[in-house]
Amino acid sequence: MIGDGMGLAQITVAEVYLAALQNDIAPHLLSFSDFPSQGFMTTHAYDRYITGSAASGTAIATGHKTSIGTISMGPKHKIKYKSVATKAHEKGLKVGILTTVPIDHATPAVFYANEPVRHSNYNIGRQLPLSGFDYFAGGGFTYPDGRNHDQENLVALLKNYGYNYIDTKKDFQKLSPGDGKVLAVNPVLEDGAMPYRIDQTRNDITLADFTAKGIEMIDNETGFFMMVEGGQIDWAAHANDAATLIREVLDFDEAVAEALKFYKNHLNETLIVVTADHETGGMALGGRNTKYSSYFDRLKNQKVSMNEFGRLLKQYATAKAGTFSFEDALDMASKYFGLGKKNDGLMLNKADLVRLRKAYEAEFEGVKPASILDEMAVSYNGNYPFASVAVQILNEKSGVSFTSNSHTGIPVPVKAIGPGAELFDGLIDNTDISKNIEVIMGLNKNRFIGW
Amino acid sequence: MIGDGMGLAQITVAEVYLAALQNDIAPHLLSFSDFPSQGFMTTHAYDRYITGSAASGTAIATGHKTSIGTISMGPKHKIKYKSVATKAHEKGLKVGILTTVPIDHATPAVFYANEPVRHSNYNIGRQLPLSGFDYFAGGGFTYPDGRNHDQENLVALLKNYGYNYIDTKKDFQKLSPGDGKVLAVNPVLEDGAMPYRIDQTRNDITLADFTAKGIEMIDNETGFFMMVEGGQIDWAAHANDAATLIREVLDFDEAVAEALKFYKNHLNETLIVVTADHETGGMALGGRNTKYSSYFDRLKNQKVSMNEFGRLLKQYATAKAGTFSFEDALDMASKYFGLGKKNDGLMLNKADLVRLRKAYEAEFEGVKPASILDEMAVSYNGNYPFASVAVQILNEKSGVSFTSNSHTGIPVPVKAIGPGAELFDGLIDNTDISKNIEVIMGLNKNRFIGW
Repeated sequence: MIGDGMGLAQITVAEVYLAALQNDIAPHLLSFSDFPSQGFMTTHAYDRYITGSAASGTAIATGHKTSIGTISMGPKHKIKYKSVATKAHEKGLKVGILTTVPIDHATPAVFYANEPVRHSNYNIGRQLPLSGFDYFAGGGFTYPDGRNHDQENLVALLKNYGYNYIDTKKDFQKLSPGDGKVLAVNPVLEDGAMPYRIDQTRNDITLADFTAKGIEMIDNETGFFMMVEGGQIDWAAHANDAATLIREVLDFDEAVAEALKFYKNHLNETLIVVTADHETGGMALGGRNTKYSSYFDRLKNQKVSMNEFGRLLKQYATAKAGTFSFEDALDMASKYFGLGKKNDGLMLNKADLVRLRKAYEAEFEGVKPASILDEMAVSYNGNYPFASVAVQILNEKSGVSFTSNSHTGIPVPVKAIGPGAELFDGLIDNTDISKNIEVIMGLNKNRFIGW
Repeated sequence: MIGDGMGLAQITVAEVYLAALQNDIAPHLLSFSDFPSQGFMTTHAYDRYITGSAASGTAIATGHKTSIGTISMGPKHKIKYKSVATKAHEKGLKVGILTTVPIDHATPAVFYANEPVRHSNYNIGRQLPLSGFDYFAGGGFTYPDGRNHDQENLVALLKNYGYNYIDTKKDFQKLSPGDGKVLAVNPVLEDGAMPYRIDQTRNDITLADFTAKGIEMIDNETGFFMMVEGGQIDWAAHANDAATLIREVLDFDEAVAEALKFYKNHLNETLIVVTADHETGGMALGGRNTKYSSYFDRLKNQKVSMNEFGRLLKQYATAKAGTFSFEDALDMASKYFGLGKKNDGLMLNKADLVRLRKAYEAEFEGVKPASILDEMAVSYNGNYPFASVAVQILNEKSGVSFTSNSHTGIPVPVKAIGPGAELFDGLIDNTDISKNIEVIMGLNKNRFIGW
């Protein structure tokens, strides 16, 4: 189970957010916080210290370091590496691959595809049905008809290979083990990705739902291998969007809790490993604004993701044509982020207002920052300057901070429970994950040993 | 062995700095990086999520959560807690307490004193000889004659209690086990603290020297307990001074290596636990400037600590009276930090020069920032704006970043080797450290059990 971008700070912020909601100081543990085996995992790629999801995913899935952007091939793209999932499949185990991001995204892809460039999503998608894996779920294809809409449709291809394609909640709920191989996607997708948990509605299917169903679908006498990715922890961290990130970690945690339910009924034959491919955002619990104080509960005021807030603002501004004022934008920041509300400690000071106004002017009036200092003071992440500054200000007032919009190079936690979990103790490398799992599952032996 | 402020990023930055100097991508391990038992430790205080050295030190030394600023007493200052060091001493073991910061500072103090307020350094110092511990070393007293120079001299008091006071390198080298109890301090101290390792000369005594000598002094048939603190990792992290911090971590690592030498000759009877009281600075390996790239070797260009650079600048400016120009300051930044040197990738861009000039104007021409944006762009740590901005710029170009000048709330690594080390695996709390050590050493039994 891989929390993409889920470093130590990402796990901890979810724990202390839950505590803060109850007015507690001690962190509230997640389902995997105190797994009996724990360690630190180095993540560097073959050719760069700060890794990416493709290179680190390849290491996790195949036991080989590779170059940045490569999907389960050698650093020069001359050799293909076989993933632990493929090896399990070849031994007759059933296999499930689940994610909240597109199913042809780097982390799921490294388990079933070999491709020189991670951004060749269509090529990756073509390889999905060739894997013969039993259960794919969560996100869908990024470019079902190719990047230029001129290729064979991947859903049609999938069906040719005998897979079911499920994209409604009703059909998903009816899915049962006798239905055969399947790609089951969330009813709402954007370029193949599920909505952030904070933006999901009752019509969405959560990662935990997909996980529970997946276990039901592929559990069998011979055994199964399942990879579950909380893929948008990374995306929220890239955006430095703390409140959204916390909901993504809790969403992932619910999926781990489903795996734990199965574990508890199948002790001594179930191994669960929870880790990450890298840290994203250089996240810290504390900051220059709040110093030694913490107000993590203030993050509950954020009602939608930064991206969704940006979209809402743009919609509203378009609807009001030329009359969308700075005060209108502030009203939206109050409604969706609680900014300006006295009783929640979210009053805006002069510096906050200067930054928000500059972001408003840049986004809605096309004003370019007048100086380098202006640019530095109003630093934007992504396409929505005003939403980005609103997020930054809420983070600062809550005691959460970030140093980067990219990945960072800190080792990530590994937490494991079940037979062989002790192999994940201590300091390990990302290449050890599949190596250890293969040893524990006996996948490198001539015949399958079982537990 | 406690690295004050030594979170996961602080350990890792030292590992990747060593690697970068050799042009390697994979981290070079420190002496304790791959200890067989490893875990994560929560650090929160009784009354605040982000802890301080007094509260976290009290938890580590006594097994009790307490309030911020309290030295081994209850949160309301009504009860005194007995430290693991005191318990070991009462069982007839010899005890050593070593640090690079003043010996009456919070982390060493919690092992031998009980005091409501950590800043009562003089009161803490008075309790040092009462402990009867055998070997104190590294830093000296903050206020030997009290804060107002009107109290009994602590060195004289110490001698009255039969302690030797050693403050020259020659006398230190001659020290031998027959010499009795001692406080041995570095020949050069500033308010009781040793110089940063990066600023030390051959006349200084390193923490590793103090550790080796301490082991020689207190090793005996009954056993010993020793606490060694790398106390200025925290200080460098507060200053966001990455190059200085790395040297402090490596200095601490040398001390651990001395303990390991003893361990290797006394297997099955020596436990070494390496941890931290909290993280400081919200440090990350990566940043908005360098994104996915790392240039940790650029930090070797920094020749002195930020504070020492600030002092040198001030001296030079004073010597040049009214003629110390911005160009003079830039020359100093080139000499001591390599800033502006093309071949090391340390060219200064327009934004760097704007920030340095504003810092120069603030520090040497008394110009106050004109606007909030100016203040934000030129953020100062401590008393030396120009040195502070020089450090920030070198960090940014090296791929190291910080989010705070205070502590943060992320759990810290625990690494252990020796009998009972497995008790430090998994997720533990800072109160578990002394509890575990007491179990392993049998200190809570009526008689000492031995190994």
